[in-house]
Amino acid sequence: MGPHPAVAAIRLAVRRVLHDVLTEHTTTDAEHTPLVLVACSGGADSMALASALAFEARKLPVRAGGITVDHGLQDGSDTRAGEVVGRMTALGLTPSEAVAVTVGREGGPEAAARDARYAALDAAAERHGAAAILLGHTRDDQAETVLLGLARGSGIRSLSGMAAISGASGRYRRPFLQLDRQTVRKACVAQELAVWDDPHNSDPAYTRSRLRHEGLPALEKALGKGVVEALARTAQLSRDDADALDTWAADAETSVRDEAGALECAKLHGLPPAVRRRVLRRAVIAEGAPAGSLFARHIEEVDRLITGWRGQGAINLPGRVEARRQGGRLVIRQG
Amino acid sequence: MGPHPAVAAIRLAVRRVLHDVLTEHTTTDAEHTPLVLVACSGGADSMALASALAFEARKLPVRAGGITVDHGLQDGSDTRAGEVVGRMTALGLTPSEAVAVTVGREGGPEAAARDARYAALDAAAERHGAAAILLGHTRDDQAETVLLGLARGSGIRSLSGMAAISGASGRYRRPFLQLDRQTVRKACVAQELAVWDDPHNSDPAYTRSRLRHEGLPALEKALGKGVVEALARTAQLSRDDADALDTWAADAETSVRDEAGALECAKLHGLPPAVRRRVLRRAVIAEGAPAGSLFARHIEEVDRLITGWRGQGAINLPGRVEARRQGGRLVIRQG
Repeated sequence: MGPHPAVAAIRLAVRRVLHDVLTEHTTTDAEHTPLVLVACSGGADSMALASALAFEARKLPVRAGGITVDHGLQDGSDTRAGEVVGRMTALGLTPSEAVAVTVGREGGPEAAARDARYAALDAAAERHGAAAILLGHTRDDQAETVLLGLARGSGIRSLSGMAAISGASGRYRRPFLQLDRQTVRKACVAQELAVWDDPHNSDPAYTRSRLRHEGLPALEKALGKGVVEALARTAQLSRDDADALDTWAADAETSVRDEAGALECAKLHGLPPAVRRRVLRRAVIAEGAPAGSLFARHIEEVDRLITGWRGQGAINLPGRVEARRQGGRLVIRQG
Repeated sequence: MGPHPAVAAIRLAVRRVLHDVLTEHTTTDAEHTPLVLVACSGGADSMALASALAFEARKLPVRAGGITVDHGLQDGSDTRAGEVVGRMTALGLTPSEAVAVTVGREGGPEAAARDARYAALDAAAERHGAAAILLGHTRDDQAETVLLGLARGSGIRSLSGMAAISGASGRYRRPFLQLDRQTVRKACVAQELAVWDDPHNSDPAYTRSRLRHEGLPALEKALGKGVVEALARTAQLSRDDADALDTWAADAETSVRDEAGALECAKLHGLPPAVRRRVLRRAVIAEGAPAGSLFARHIEEVDRLITGWRGQGAINLPGRVEARRQGGRLVIRQG
């Protein structure tokens, strides 16, 4: 009798990623078997991932380890991290270790925790020379991420959710991005894995938690059960579209500059609006505006120097960058 | 004392559109003052629109009329349509008329009613030689349309909502697309306009109604009050992006064909995925596949003939169209 279908599904998902990693890390040196780490909070999704990694790595020339990040945000989080290390060790993951981080405040509690977590995972990967770090995000997490991006209203890049492969040289892999959360949870039950419910996940103070427990279910009730899948598909399509338009904008930027490198308004005017706005955004960032503070409305105002010219003055942008139209050229400069 | 701010807002929105229409329909013949019609259900949004059109047209070389469509879906709908005509006439709209339609079943009740309505409006515009038809969709309607598109998961075109200008030669105009529903409703109250609440709008059997009364409020609760605005902005950005990518795909299609007009797989392979999929979609539709039955998964399967070639057979597509790879060429043909 084979494994439970849910267990088979999570293992297959991990096996595919391990094959990719092996293909990319071919080495003739048999001693350098690549190390793949799982980032494990002890929650159901990442415990399922840890179990599948441990199982599949045994059959492949891959070493499997695990890292748990202690965010230090709750009393006893260090004890909890120690328990997770114990569970990862029991699965056969070597190394299994806990890393403590200090969470700052920048960008709100969720963003700050995420930044601290990825910094710690990056450091762990470097320290151990890991070929990849697996993350347990499911299709449901992806749907939530798309809705969070939608709420920003800043265009298709923010609808593109999480990538299956991301980070420095494609370090992060998300094997479960096409699997629904229910399957992953079932795989835990079927394997009798002890899992921890992160209280943050049901704390209505957190946007993602409100989305998960109220927003998305209401949307499913109104639009039907396929919403999560539709959101995940939207992420993939939006990502490809955003990539293509970025490529176009990079090419176009060269073609709209004169010999001295100045942006020619007449040539900018001839670009499709979607491409022109991306060229403008690139140019403003290149002059020192921080990408995170640059909103659609800033770029729209700069765009009006091209498409709605009526002699308006300089536009002030984040990072003390200023854009003005001068003699048929768009001059963008840091003050 | 000027008008109520909400009344000023709806009038300004209509005035802008009338100016656009006048600019486009300049004629030296004073007898041919352009006619602008409002499509009016008698509900708050379109009654507000009718009132603003009647008011603004008096100050401009524009004739203003109104059409109400009797869908015949409820008992007494003809009486109701007669009442709406009476109200439009009272506002000074000439002609004011009711048009009865028969609603079919294709695509579900909402789509069938919409198709019948637009066909009747098109016919009315032709009959009266109207320069434009104004529609009362608000920013809230736009947000709902984006979510409905999102639920299809078919990419950014379906996220682009309703256009401010659409239809044959830009006949349809949506002056309220940037105004929130609350402002429009306030303008009705301030002007003491009698309005009719369409029971469909609160009938949970209709997807849009469920979205309006349950889905969107839950999403606002989870993500904050800016969601409607963010969705409307997403619509505009997605529309521009989709237009740019369509342009690119149209250009690319020429470049990937050989001298005999056949699609070259190697050249297709070199395109960004977002552009390649659009080229494939265009090619499949050109051979007779109905656009409405062609889903993302169909195009993905055709795409695998290019990016995942392992000798697979012909792909069957809607409209008896078939795609196969043959000697480095992609052959798409209706059977």
